[in-house]
Amino acid sequence: MSNTGINVSHISNFGKIIDPSLISDDPQIVSDYGGDWCKAFKRKPSLVLFPKTTQQVSSILSYCHENKLCVVPSGGRTGLAGGATAQNHEIVLSLDKMNKIRNIDPVSLTVEVESGVTTQALQEAAKAHHLFFPLDLAAKGSSHIGGNLATNAGGLKFIRFGGARDLVLGIEVVLASGEILNLNSQVRKNNCGYDLKQLFIGSEGTLGIITKATLKLTPPPHKNFLSCLGLHSMESILEVFKLCHQSHFQISAFEYLTEHTFKLVQTCFPDSIKNPFQDIYPYYLLIELESHGNEALNEIEEFLASLFEKDILADAVIASSSEEEHALWSIRENISEGLAMSGPVVKNDISIPISLLAEWEEEFQSLSKAHPELDTFEFGHIGDGNLHLNYLGPKDQKTQDFYHSIKHFQEKVYTLVKKFKGSISAEHGIGLLKKDDLHFTRCASEIYYMRKIKEIFDPHKILNPGKIFD
Amino acid sequence: MSNTGINVSHISNFGKIIDPSLISDDPQIVSDYGGDWCKAFKRKPSLVLFPKTTQQVSSILSYCHENKLCVVPSGGRTGLAGGATAQNHEIVLSLDKMNKIRNIDPVSLTVEVESGVTTQALQEAAKAHHLFFPLDLAAKGSSHIGGNLATNAGGLKFIRFGGARDLVLGIEVVLASGEILNLNSQVRKNNCGYDLKQLFIGSEGTLGIITKATLKLTPPPHKNFLSCLGLHSMESILEVFKLCHQSHFQISAFEYLTEHTFKLVQTCFPDSIKNPFQDIYPYYLLIELESHGNEALNEIEEFLASLFEKDILADAVIASSSEEEHALWSIRENISEGLAMSGPVVKNDISIPISLLAEWEEEFQSLSKAHPELDTFEFGHIGDGNLHLNYLGPKDQKTQDFYHSIKHFQEKVYTLVKKFKGSISAEHGIGLLKKDDLHFTRCASEIYYMRKIKEIFDPHKILNPGKIFD
Repeated sequence: MSNTGINVSHISNFGKIIDPSLISDDPQIVSDYGGDWCKAFKRKPSLVLFPKTTQQVSSILSYCHENKLCVVPSGGRTGLAGGATAQNHEIVLSLDKMNKIRNIDPVSLTVEVESGVTTQALQEAAKAHHLFFPLDLAAKGSSHIGGNLATNAGGLKFIRFGGARDLVLGIEVVLASGEILNLNSQVRKNNCGYDLKQLFIGSEGTLGIITKATLKLTPPPHKNFLSCLGLHSMESILEVFKLCHQSHFQISAFEYLTEHTFKLVQTCFPDSIKNPFQDIYPYYLLIELESHGNEALNEIEEFLASLFEKDILADAVIASSSEEEHALWSIRENISEGLAMSGPVVKNDISIPISLLAEWEEEFQSLSKAHPELDTFEFGHIGDGNLHLNYLGPKDQKTQDFYHSIKHFQEKVYTLVKKFKGSISAEHGIGLLKKDDLHFTRCASEIYYMRKIKEIFDPHKILNPGKIFD
Repeated sequence: MSNTGINVSHISNFGKIIDPSLISDDPQIVSDYGGDWCKAFKRKPSLVLFPKTTQQVSSILSYCHENKLCVVPSGGRTGLAGGATAQNHEIVLSLDKMNKIRNIDPVSLTVEVESGVTTQALQEAAKAHHLFFPLDLAAKGSSHIGGNLATNAGGLKFIRFGGARDLVLGIEVVLASGEILNLNSQVRKNNCGYDLKQLFIGSEGTLGIITKATLKLTPPPHKNFLSCLGLHSMESILEVFKLCHQSHFQISAFEYLTEHTFKLVQTCFPDSIKNPFQDIYPYYLLIELESHGNEALNEIEEFLASLFEKDILADAVIASSSEEEHALWSIRENISEGLAMSGPVVKNDISIPISLLAEWEEEFQSLSKAHPELDTFEFGHIGDGNLHLNYLGPKDQKTQDFYHSIKHFQEKVYTLVKKFKGSISAEHGIGLLKKDDLHFTRCASEIYYMRKIKEIFDPHKILNPGKIFD
């Protein structure tokens, strides 16, 4: 279905629901709001609507449902799978104007937010109340809470606090028909039948539009100590991981990158990125350990020294100032920008059972070596089993062309992921980008049941058409 | 639908799927397996089947689906809402014989279990590997992992580790048709479309039978320090809760009981239950604070002293030996037995947004006082907002009669729960016991969508008929 039939009468009717100033067909705005950070797809939205209230979202959807007009929900548009792309004249419904934060509660440790609040705005609001909102993403300045929930965002603190799903107490969601469902608003425990809100979390806007949420906050974490470790093998990474669990520290970040990835960042940012070690090592780990007490730093030093003595580590540094912390984190944080500067990039976002990572790495390296034409960069949230595999194409090639040129290689990677019972999308979702590959992680029967659930909540298929599955 | 049509031919056909020794129509066995700890309903099962493999569960369900025979899945039968009760000649499918624990993995921190493993068996197996399975229930010796997942069990450590839902990575589930679905087996992160496993968790066996699961384990917790506090008001309880969050301790249990409840336990167990204080207080808190380091005990003493100085606490003791810990915990752990000894009991298991608990308590006390004929006992996981309200009837009355006699009062309690946007079943589920009251927590539209989902997964309505909704 597409909306080529959008006409003056529809626009006039939307103007009865929201102020006409909240309707845009300005080509620049329509183009900006017609897609996300994924550049692999053309954008062809018809209109952008900016409702300010749940009731307006409801009236818009009710109208679209009756008139079979397709709608693409739009948050901060930082997605990497094309999930917020309007390809076929769909109406873009932006949550930009619904951005209130209410009732930050230091007893319940909860907050009520509208969907258009950015991740960073919520982090800052929580901080002002001496509380902490743990979801943390590279895109936090732009990403919306609604988008985080619709895509079940993961991010940097997943290992410590879980992902978006784990932080939700309740959601308000508007169904395709315009019906508003309020699903388990504020209580921590509620075993009254099927937990319907779980369906909407991670459904990428295909089942309903999340308009509000009650989220969990936490007390501020203890002090975090950031270390950078140099290692010789994936086996060593897993050994460090196991020993961290056996220590009394709380792991709050456990990120890796390969030597090749490190060198790229250093080449792209020679002034700011320094090698923390004398030598270069095949693997780098950035780990944050959280601990309390005056002895924490000494204890972490002793812990790392013990790993060094056991030959698990090749080298290690602990950041001793916020400048040093910033310098170490910037290695990790500049990878995506370094890649983007260097040519067209295709990103894989896979997950593998953690204890199988050494075997995975061996097989993936073989596959990579068999394709010397591809320049492969590895990094990611390895403590969650979540690897970002990035492929860099020839500088003069367009991303879309590069994407198509490596489809055959992609299939080999995903076949390997399937062999390891992994996921082809750990945290970025399926969107348009991976729907043809969904079968590598979900069986035909699962996809069948997803379709049946879609039929229940969106019988006319007006919501985010073509995302996850056709 | 009921199974009055069970005949010799059916039994003979089950005998082709499982060994005939695994089929029982012995009246005692059939009666034992035909219900759970909820005594409010009559049991009338036809047969009990004890399959040993997922394939056998699948073949049994496939046969029942074709022949429209109803099936009640049966775990450890420790439920309190009648969810495992066979009322109308249903076949009881017990998971007793599927009790293997596999692949306890110290790197991934995961374990694979069959559904019939008891909670305690898994706790012990994890401990033997220097790991920890955090789900902890009074019924842990009997309750099955499968039942924990099917009811999304909560328990004593919910505040620290979450409930059953939070501990699941993947499940294997057999649908009514016999189809086996393997939903996200081992990875920590997987954003590939709708998270179907969430539907089965907490569905009380109405959508499918969970046969296996991959669960999260954790490192063993740090040392826990148990305190018992005496307090004058619910406001003080909330103030203690807030200040615990603001401390550097990790709360790992936060339980309360009222003076009236304390006195009942003391009366029932005069030899073992001692008042930890000189005086009696309106409220008792049992809190476990987890901390690391040599100074932990001193720090907790100082923390409690600071609460005392601020007049938030009336009195406090910290257990200084495992005997003292046991003595304090036994106050909490003997409540249900004390009640059961004293007469017929009706149990409410509600949750209220935590910051509203003082207002709730005031209104509930008014309601209670207006019904002096009812003897009301309060206790529960107050740090989760989860209150167990228990009503004791006349010693000579049958539980079923008492249950029916207070229906009108129940409605008033649930109306109050609804006013506070709470849940009428925080952790015990709906089963048969609360299905008529489901509307107090879930709106008609939510129940409509639950029914539509049920139709997808169990079109002939053979699985656990009459549970959650009709």
